Amino acid sequence: MVIGGGTGNFAVLRGLKKYPVHLSAIVSMADDGGSTGILRDDLGVLPPGDVRQCLVALSNSSSLMRSLMNYRFENGGLGGHSFGNLFLSALEKVTGSFEKAVEEMGRILVINGKVIPVTTHEVRLKMILSNRKILEGEKEVYLSQEIDQGYQSIFLEPYSEANPQAIEEIEAADLIVVGPGGLHTSLIPNLLVKGISNALLRSKGKKIFVANLMNRKGQTTGYKVSHYLEELLRYIGSDIFDYILVNDERPPEELIEVYAQEGTLVENDIDESRVVTAPLLGPMKDPHEMDLIKRNLIRHDSERLAQELMKIVPHL
Amino acid sequence: MVIGGGTGNFAVLRGLKKYPVHLSAIVSMADDGGSTGILRDDLGVLPPGDVRQCLVALSNSSSLMRSLMNYRFENGGLGGHSFGNLFLSALEKVTGSFEKAVEEMGRILVINGKVIPVTTHEVRLKMILSNRKILEGEKEVYLSQEIDQGYQSIFLEPYSEANPQAIEEIEAADLIVVGPGGLHTSLIPNLLVKGISNALLRSKGKKIFVANLMNRKGQTTGYKVSHYLEELLRYIGSDIFDYILVNDERPPEELIEVYAQEGTLVENDIDESRVVTAPLLGPMKDPHEMDLIKRNLIRHDSERLAQELMKIVPHL
Repeated sequence: MVIGGGTGNFAVLRGLKKYPVHLSAIVSMADDGGSTGILRDDLGVLPPGDVRQCLVALSNSSSLMRSLMNYRFENGGLGGHSFGNLFLSALEKVTGSFEKAVEEMGRILVINGKVIPVTTHEVRLKMILSNRKILEGEKEVYLSQEIDQGYQSIFLEPYSEANPQAIEEIEAADLIVVGPGGLHTSLIPNLLVKGISNALLRSKGKKIFVANLMNRKGQTTGYKVSHYLEELLRYIGSDIFDYILVNDERPPEELIEVYAQEGTLVENDIDESRVVTAPLLGPMKDPHEMDLIKRNLIRHDSERLAQELMKIVPHL
Repeated sequence: MVIGGGTGNFAVLRGLKKYPVHLSAIVSMADDGGSTGILRDDLGVLPPGDVRQCLVALSNSSSLMRSLMNYRFENGGLGGHSFGNLFLSALEKVTGSFEKAVEEMGRILVINGKVIPVTTHEVRLKMILSNRKILEGEKEVYLSQEIDQGYQSIFLEPYSEANPQAIEEIEAADLIVVGPGGLHTSLIPNLLVKGISNALLRSKGKKIFVANLMNRKGQTTGYKVSHYLEELLRYIGSDIFDYILVNDERPPEELIEVYAQEGTLVENDIDESRVVTAPLLGPMKDPHEMDLIKRNLIRHDSERLAQELMKIVPHL
């Protein structure tokens, strides 16, 4: 069971898919940027983007189908839309339900596992900064350069019930992987849904936090692993993590330089036995992940990630 | 084997699908109106609309998939686009070939038979009217109210080779059904492709012309069956039809009135033994055909149509 949303999820799911485990992905429903944001505004649908990425990650269908789902139209009124997003949104319109749409698309893509929207209510992410500025929507949070100056609160509007299926899956999971992913835009938005943190506290499964590779300037500037952990735990309510998986491989200096204006490497400052370090960096290999290349030059290798996760919990 | 494009094809294919015959549909590539026209202009793809309709007609997939393919987005930059059109166009982009896209979509929709673009070249329909006005594109031809004043020529630009697969299928077919369908916008555009008429002349299969139910005002005003036949034969080169199937059922007067401003009923004026008459009108039943309702209130019943066709050639 993997909790997150966005490209971090993608790597974990794509890696774990090759192991004989039952996989489920809990996906944040706060996305409102890009193609997803336009579809929410124009069609009144729930956000398809992150769900699509998880579905593609878990897909066993032809490489053509996976490329198709990640294909982005380039021109005209369709420009910028990912075809997979349109697929989910059209399915939502035809079935009358986002959950049914996700299920149906899972069937069409022959997915291995389940993709579960963390809530099926329409929610928007909001953040009130220490300077009292209000950020409305995940996109504004994502683009803000002031979050590292401190914030008063982050919440979903309306404060909504979790999808009961998400609660069930969390409670039944043998392994729960949190992260990697945008702290304020992918991870915390899941924890802000009513019932999710309590389910995490109740669950008897092993819990692993996978630390991010890179900080985001203006958001998590200068964060070390302990800062991520601390902020997550504020929303979970107590330290639930049995393991913390951290990359210990240094990327090529030229890549670090390219990234310098976006953020720096996340350093590990936790010296506890539950911290597992391993080289986790990966080159891009899979053409279906092309969509992600532009965003994440320094990224986790899905195979190495999965290998380490399975080493930590070999009994699964 | 059915030749046409548009809603007429749909009825014939949907009806014949239930019989144990090998079906193939040759589809005109001249469409450039509506969603299809926008996709041609914005994305540079071949016209998906008529092909999509034939694929849906031949589909054995779930009713959900068929509804999905005919679903039209209502708002924003996507407004008016049929999802199935986007599907075909995205597949064309990803595979790099319209033919491969049609094949792949046929696989996804589990179609019974083949859908064959009459040409895989990019063509535009043009018409020079008797008053020297030039109509550029099928949409302009479709909307013109002056065609019944006479025209000098109708042609495709560029004059393009037929898809070799279309030629093969025509030559091998045991039965060839031409029509029903828009005379200048669906039927003749197929005959204007290099090689199609000759293939029809060579083919040893039985040929049946299915007469339209309604005339289009300003286009085929006051046409009788013989006028349709005559105009078709001008492009085929010789009278190839073994049978002419004509509806003999009168629609309710209120429907005829509703239609009065669009056109009148097509009367049969041919008294030959090859003319087969039967009641062929149908009420709308299939929700997947909802897309068509608005356009065709008076339309063929696909089951009756297929039944009569199979009666004419019972050995198939």
